[in-house]
Amino acid sequence: MTEFIPPGSRFHALSSPLPMKRGGTLHGARIAYETWGSLDAARGNAILVLTGLSPDAHAASHQADPSAGWWEAMLGPGKAIDTDRWFVVCVNSLGSCKGSTGPASPHPDDGRPWRLRFPDLSVEDVADTAAQVVRALGIGQLACVIGNSMGGMSALAFLLRHPGLARNHVNISGAARALPFSIAIRSLQREAIRLDPDWNGGDYDEDTYPESGMRMARKLGVITYRSALEWDGRFGRVRLDSDRRDDEDPFGLEFEVESYLEGHARRFVRRFDPNSYLYLSRSMDWFDIGESVGGDTDAGLARIRVEKALAIGVETDILFPLQQQRQIADGLRAGGADASFLPLPSPQGHDAFLVDIARFGPAVAEFLQTI
Amino acid sequence: MTEFIPPGSRFHALSSPLPMKRGGTLHGARIAYETWGSLDAARGNAILVLTGLSPDAHAASHQADPSAGWWEAMLGPGKAIDTDRWFVVCVNSLGSCKGSTGPASPHPDDGRPWRLRFPDLSVEDVADTAAQVVRALGIGQLACVIGNSMGGMSALAFLLRHPGLARNHVNISGAARALPFSIAIRSLQREAIRLDPDWNGGDYDEDTYPESGMRMARKLGVITYRSALEWDGRFGRVRLDSDRRDDEDPFGLEFEVESYLEGHARRFVRRFDPNSYLYLSRSMDWFDIGESVGGDTDAGLARIRVEKALAIGVETDILFPLQQQRQIADGLRAGGADASFLPLPSPQGHDAFLVDIARFGPAVAEFLQTI
Repeated sequence: MTEFIPPGSRFHALSSPLPMKRGGTLHGARIAYETWGSLDAARGNAILVLTGLSPDAHAASHQADPSAGWWEAMLGPGKAIDTDRWFVVCVNSLGSCKGSTGPASPHPDDGRPWRLRFPDLSVEDVADTAAQVVRALGIGQLACVIGNSMGGMSALAFLLRHPGLARNHVNISGAARALPFSIAIRSLQREAIRLDPDWNGGDYDEDTYPESGMRMARKLGVITYRSALEWDGRFGRVRLDSDRRDDEDPFGLEFEVESYLEGHARRFVRRFDPNSYLYLSRSMDWFDIGESVGGDTDAGLARIRVEKALAIGVETDILFPLQQQRQIADGLRAGGADASFLPLPSPQGHDAFLVDIARFGPAVAEFLQTI
Repeated sequence: MTEFIPPGSRFHALSSPLPMKRGGTLHGARIAYETWGSLDAARGNAILVLTGLSPDAHAASHQADPSAGWWEAMLGPGKAIDTDRWFVVCVNSLGSCKGSTGPASPHPDDGRPWRLRFPDLSVEDVADTAAQVVRALGIGQLACVIGNSMGGMSALAFLLRHPGLARNHVNISGAARALPFSIAIRSLQREAIRLDPDWNGGDYDEDTYPESGMRMARKLGVITYRSALEWDGRFGRVRLDSDRRDDEDPFGLEFEVESYLEGHARRFVRRFDPNSYLYLSRSMDWFDIGESVGGDTDAGLARIRVEKALAIGVETDILFPLQQQRQIADGLRAGGADASFLPLPSPQGHDAFLVDIARFGPAVAEFLQTI
């Protein structure tokens, strides 16, 4: 299975052997990352960005890769995360297929993909390997760690497991633990992939990629990443033009919203490794910042030490609902942080941080100006 | 494909040939229905119940079938829909597989199932054939038509297309048109069924029933029928006991919520005809009460004539959100009805009318006492 590595990637060789939290060991593993801006003499201006499930480390364009990144509008000179001031590092999660070691990477013993031989992946492993990258860059303390979605989980694990490594924190549409609605959605996405005969117990290749399973999983994802409110205004009941419909298919695409989902799915499949999707997805289900304190999530949050924190959520988010960001702010405050909760009325649901830059830009910029 | 016909069913032979709204014709078709209570001398105490996508006509127990029905807690002597006072008729929708003619029924020409030869099914066909049953029972005017979920759509079509046939109306978690979020969910459910190799273009039998596609469709349904709020309290992050887990399956069931979905799916598959599911599901996407007035849904509602109406919705319903029941009440009021909108804080989402009898019972009972 091909990995999908952005051309401007840099790589950090992880300590080897690398024991994984839930058992198993990696040898010769690596993390892909990209950076923007310059580390100042005091090494005090560094920001770490941790991503959602699917993005790579290419958050924004830079000299080595001038293509637009997934957070292009937020990150760059003069933007909300201003690279004239900050040295920004974005890492590709361990277990992904975008340059970091994951199930699609070659196993050191035989050079064949790890596939399901890859050890259980946890959010904590993602956090710990990101911390290795930070330290390898000579950063003793980050000014801030910013995490979006799954990255909001990774960021909390990072802060809890590496006290002192970050001074401040922005958590965007994140969660301190997985709740049953999102577990149910992700379980169904994984089932769709596993039911595809081409998945074949994880043993597929370019020619037998489980495309229909991945299409289903991605469509279900997109449905939960956006919001009914946005779609009412955007699609309503608009039909496809007849030349975009297949009249031979009695249950084929008819409404614009169906075509939108199909387009999203087509752009995703064959650009992401299905096994990697399974591992990353399940790591989110397992995550609870309170795991080490008997499943008391609030107590887990209160054990985190940061100076200032901002938890941003979106009213229309059904996957990481607003009370989860409120819980993060309350929990960090209980731990002594100067923590704020900012609910935003964006109509775009969980994905709003990618598109509603008019609201997210000023919120993040203002926070960063105070640290 | 077997049909699943409750033993207490009665049958009405539909007019033949029966032209369908979107083209095509049925011959020798029938509607299954059940009744409770007695029609009074003036034939003025009749109530029609129209169902959601999957239920049969067995809403409650009666002499010919003492098994509990799907609305057992609401319907019976002394209950909210009090069969000591009312003569209640519940019909199984045209296109279903529970006794009414649908894709699993024998085609009159060759005795083999209609399958995809069944003509396009619309909510209006469901309404019109229910009206035939009402008239055949000698009822000139219903005291009330009650519709739940898809039945709320059918009820609006019934009222618009058969003016004078019902005096009052209760719409429960219904909608005057399908909106893109619910279209997207249903489209994905249909895709799951169609992707199952056993679906085979609709040509399956008992031995090759598309079980995995139906399981996926049902699980996605259940996710959208309930609410995240309910599940947080009900399941939280509780794991299955080790004896209920398959350690050989690396991505098998682990959380209670996954097992709950699996149980729901197992009880549903092989009890519902997949082609029937496709037809009924798509009919909902097509529905807009404003279709005949240029897609102006409010204007369509305002063309309905009833005396009193009650539209009940649930705050946690993501599939038929609350604003859709508010729209129904507002639209019927614009048409001259004494129409109320009742939002309920039930945690159970779209399915609340099946389980939150403590709230739905009194609401429906009080309305029926005023008519």
